[in-house]
Amino acid sequence: MISTIQEVIKRITPADEQSFLKAEHRLNILTKPPGSLGQLETLAVKLAGISGTEQPSFTKRTVVVMAADHGVCCEGVSAFPQEVTMQMAYNFLSGGAAVNVLARQAGAEVKFVDIGVNGDLSHDDLMDRKVRRGTDNMAVGPAMSREEAMSAVLVGIRVAEEAIENGTEIFITGEMGIGNTTASAAILCALKGIAPEVAAGRGTGIDDERLLHKIAVVERALKVNQPNPADPLDVLSKVGGLEIAGLTGLILGAAAARIPVILDGFISGAAALVAKALAPESIAYMIGSHVSGEQGHKLMLEKLGLEPLFNLGLRLGEGTGGVLSLHLIEAICRILSEMATFESAGISGAGKQ
Amino acid sequence: MISTIQEVIKRITPADEQSFLKAEHRLNILTKPPGSLGQLETLAVKLAGISGTEQPSFTKRTVVVMAADHGVCCEGVSAFPQEVTMQMAYNFLSGGAAVNVLARQAGAEVKFVDIGVNGDLSHDDLMDRKVRRGTDNMAVGPAMSREEAMSAVLVGIRVAEEAIENGTEIFITGEMGIGNTTASAAILCALKGIAPEVAAGRGTGIDDERLLHKIAVVERALKVNQPNPADPLDVLSKVGGLEIAGLTGLILGAAAARIPVILDGFISGAAALVAKALAPESIAYMIGSHVSGEQGHKLMLEKLGLEPLFNLGLRLGEGTGGVLSLHLIEAICRILSEMATFESAGISGAGKQ
Repeated sequence: MISTIQEVIKRITPADEQSFLKAEHRLNILTKPPGSLGQLETLAVKLAGISGTEQPSFTKRTVVVMAADHGVCCEGVSAFPQEVTMQMAYNFLSGGAAVNVLARQAGAEVKFVDIGVNGDLSHDDLMDRKVRRGTDNMAVGPAMSREEAMSAVLVGIRVAEEAIENGTEIFITGEMGIGNTTASAAILCALKGIAPEVAAGRGTGIDDERLLHKIAVVERALKVNQPNPADPLDVLSKVGGLEIAGLTGLILGAAAARIPVILDGFISGAAALVAKALAPESIAYMIGSHVSGEQGHKLMLEKLGLEPLFNLGLRLGEGTGGVLSLHLIEAICRILSEMATFESAGISGAGKQ
Repeated sequence: MISTIQEVIKRITPADEQSFLKAEHRLNILTKPPGSLGQLETLAVKLAGISGTEQPSFTKRTVVVMAADHGVCCEGVSAFPQEVTMQMAYNFLSGGAAVNVLARQAGAEVKFVDIGVNGDLSHDDLMDRKVRRGTDNMAVGPAMSREEAMSAVLVGIRVAEEAIENGTEIFITGEMGIGNTTASAAILCALKGIAPEVAAGRGTGIDDERLLHKIAVVERALKVNQPNPADPLDVLSKVGGLEIAGLTGLILGAAAARIPVILDGFISGAAALVAKALAPESIAYMIGSHVSGEQGHKLMLEKLGLEPLFNLGLRLGEGTGGVLSLHLIEAICRILSEMATFESAGISGAGKQ
C-alpha cells in the first residue's frame, strides 16, 4: 500500500519503448495501407507502451466517479443548486445517470466515491471516503487545507490500488460536483498562467451574465489565495476541489501501476494538470478521450500535450466522454490481435505494380 | 420487389416530424443539463425521425462491402496493383480484414458483394452479383454503359431489400476496389463542379508525383467523357464505378424502407452524392460517420450537408469508419431508453436555486 504522495511519484516510470516499436511494426504488416487507421494507430502504440505488450487488451474497465461539493457555489456560479450533487449521487448509485448507461454499453463498472459531498449519503454500493463536507468558498479564502488536499489525493491513490487489486486493467475518470468547472478553471489559471476569461466556460449552461460573474469569482479566488504555480498541492488546496484531488490521486495510482487512465472532460483535465505537475512521467499513462464543449478544455488538452479522439460538443462530465472512447480503444486492440497480415493473407504490398 | 430506379425514388419520403419532436422532448427531461450530449443529441433526433419512434434501437446491423475493379488502374493511379482487389476479397470472406474485426466488435454482419471484380471469385459466403468484370479506363472513354450503371444500382437496391427482409435495421456502406478514390474524385468533380486538384487525394498513400498524375487522369476523364452534371446516371456510368453504383442503390433501397444508412468515407460519399442527386429526400436517411484523411472528403460531406461524428484521419475505407460509429449510435439510443428523468430521479432542475 502506497502511503505518501512522494512514494507514488517515485514509482512512476516511462512507458515501454520496446513495445512501442513492436506495435508500430505490427501495424505496418497488417492488411491495410500503412498509417491508414490514422490517429487510432498512434493510440495503439501508446497503449502498447503503457501495458508493455504489442497486443494489449483491457477487459476489466472501471469508471471512478468522485463526487464532492464546492463552497464557491454560494457565489451563484452554476445553473444548478448545490443539492443536485446529493440528488445525483443516488441517481448514479441506482444506475440512472448517463455514465451508468454508457458504462453498461461499454462493459465498464462504475465506482461511485463520496470524497466530499455536503451531506450524508447511504447506499450499499457507495464508497464512502469523505474527507470533509464540501470545500470552503475559494472566493474568500482557501477551499481547503493542504492536509485535506493531500488526504483527498491519497484517497484517489488508494481507490486505484484497490481496483487494480480487484483486476482493473483500465480506468476512466468521472466526477460529479455542482460548481466544479469553476474550481477547474481556477486550477488551469493558477498552474498555467491563463486568464480567467479564457479558462472559464458555461459549465452546465449558464447565460452571458452569469458567465461574467463566474469569471470575476475565479479572478477573486486567485487574488485572495495567491496559489503558487510551482507548488501543485498549494494550487489544489486553495482553488481546487475534493473530487479533483481524488482524481489526481487516481491518475497517479494508475500510472504507478502502468495502467492506462482515460481522461474525460474539463474537471478530469484539471486533475490531470495537477498530476502532471507532481509527476511529469504520469502523462504517458493518460489517454485524452474527447474535447468537450466547455470553453477551456481544448487549451487544457494542449497544455497537457494530449490529442483527443473526438469532439462531439459533450459537456456533461461524469466520465461520459471517457467511457465512449473505450469502444475506440477496444477497436484498435482488436485490430492488433485479430487482423490478417499481408503475409498470412497472401496479399501484394504497396508499390509492387 | 423494386424493379426500377424510378420506383425506388418514388418510395422515398421525408422522415417523421412527430418523432423528431418527441425525441427532442425526451432529451430535455433526462437527468443532464439540456444539450449537454452535444452532437449526439442531434443524432438522436435524426435517428428518431428516420425510424418513427422516440426510442429507436438498431439491433441487426449489416455492413455491405461492394467490391469492383477499375479500368483506370492501368494509368497507374494507385499505390497498390489491381490484383489486390481479388486478394483482399478472400481476406474479407475469411474475416481477416479491418472491417471484419470492427464489425465483430460492433455486432454487425459483413455481406461481401462481388459487383464487378476483374476475376472469378468462389466462396460460400460470397454474394455474386457481378455486372461485369471491372470498368473500362475512364481516361479514354466511358467507364461503363448507362445500362450497366443502372444494373449495378439495381443490384444495390436488391441487396438492401434482401437484407431488410432478413431483419436488417441499419446499414453501413463499405467497399473495396483498387482505383476507386480516382473514380470517386471524378464523380465529385462532375456533379459539384469541383476542380480535380481539390477533389483528388492520396488514396492508399501515393506520393506527390503520382498524385499530380492522378489529378491529370481525372481531368482527362472529365474532358473525354463530358459527364452531364444534371444527369446523375450519366456521371455514374462515364466516370464512376460498379461498387459506387451498387452503394448508390443500397442507399436508395434503405431510404425507401426508412432504414438508416451510415456512410463510411470518400467512396461511400461519392455514392451518396449520386443518391442525393437522384432522390434529394434520401439524405434524411444517411448518417455521416467520420471525415476521413482523404483530401476531398470534408468538402464532399459539406456538399452532402452531413456533419460527421469524428475525425481520426482514417483512410482505409471498407466501411471501417462507419462501423466505428455504430457504438455512438447505440450509445445515444441507450441514453434515450435507459436514462432516468429529472422527475423519476427526484432531482432539481436548472435555474431553481
